[in-house]
Amino acid sequence: MAHPGPIARLIEQFQKLPGIGEKTATRLAYHVLKSAPVLAQGLAEAIRRVKEEVVLCRSCWNLTDADPCAICRDDRRDPLQICVVEEPPDLLAIERTGKFRGHFHVLHGALSPLDGIGPDDLHFGELLDRLEKLGKKCEVIVATNLNADGEATALYLARILKPIGYRVTRLAQGIPTGGDLEYVDPLSIAKSLENRREL
Amino acid sequence: MAHPGPIARLIEQFQKLPGIGEKTATRLAYHVLKSAPVLAQGLAEAIRRVKEEVVLCRSCWNLTDADPCAICRDDRRDPLQICVVEEPPDLLAIERTGKFRGHFHVLHGALSPLDGIGPDDLHFGELLDRLEKLGKKCEVIVATNLNADGEATALYLARILKPIGYRVTRLAQGIPTGGDLEYVDPLSIAKSLENRREL
Repeated sequence: MAHPGPIARLIEQFQKLPGIGEKTATRLAYHVLKSAPVLAQGLAEAIRRVKEEVVLCRSCWNLTDADPCAICRDDRRDPLQICVVEEPPDLLAIERTGKFRGHFHVLHGALSPLDGIGPDDLHFGELLDRLEKLGKKCEVIVATNLNADGEATALYLARILKPIGYRVTRLAQGIPTGGDLEYVDPLSIAKSLENRREL
Repeated sequence: MAHPGPIARLIEQFQKLPGIGEKTATRLAYHVLKSAPVLAQGLAEAIRRVKEEVVLCRSCWNLTDADPCAICRDDRRDPLQICVVEEPPDLLAIERTGKFRGHFHVLHGALSPLDGIGPDDLHFGELLDRLEKLGKKCEVIVATNLNADGEATALYLARILKPIGYRVTRLAQGIPTGGDLEYVDPLSIAKSLENRREL
């Protein structure tokens, strides 16, 4: 006697999510089953729609439900400051500080030779195209994570952008080394933004 | 700048699940978004189907996709042993021991005066009906959890069933007091079943 088929299938599906093992998946599945039908409908619908409605902004490559995204459309933001982040949640972490009024560029990853991720796998080319249109007065603030891959990506950006005349800065080490931007408190991120240093 | 609408809605939906806070919900939502569409489809479909296809067995009140359930249909099981559990996962925990060859009765909860859960909120009436049809040779093995509510439920069952002539036994205290059946290892459950005591 195992879980009835539909429950077993839901447990299996939940286990495909990160950090969810068999016990948690089982607890979630039984919770869905015992809850009002509206919970299951709402969850299933939200999962379906997130894949259908979320697209990438063709300017900054952030996730958005309207292209160009709200940040790229905002005229009050400084177009000459481009903050480069690894992933969309990193962008939100910086936005939460309320201290940055420029634009973003989302790489969708960091350079990682060990994982076989090179410059062509990230949105570097699109960054160069944007910078070319904006001119040499641009400052590129590198806000990749403070770990090995993030630092390698920052150095790579400095190496290609400084020789062609752009100012390249890096978030200050106010963030603990090895830290993941997404989970750092807004104050530390604000501090590191304020103390950004030349690369 | 917050999460785009569809992502925010999915995060909100995930947060309605037990033990999932904002950070975990955010991580799950972005994982769904970044994964192959087949993951999202599979998960949404499994959530929808679990609510549509899972019903209660009208004999033992276990969750099933066929009524009566596989256990109630199984002729090789002893019809004169009824193991009473609080919830369907408790039933599965006992089945996993492979040491019980009788039938089950799922109460769908335990008596809990503090939460306002009385006998009428659980499947006690249906248990009495079943026992009446089976006759006085029946043994009722009370496998409710070893915490206050589970013990109160066990005492209640003994108090109503023993005076009318049924044998009522209780899982032995091989399971740590306060423990939740669902998360106990099969060996301890097997031991507690073997050492069940009269109430």
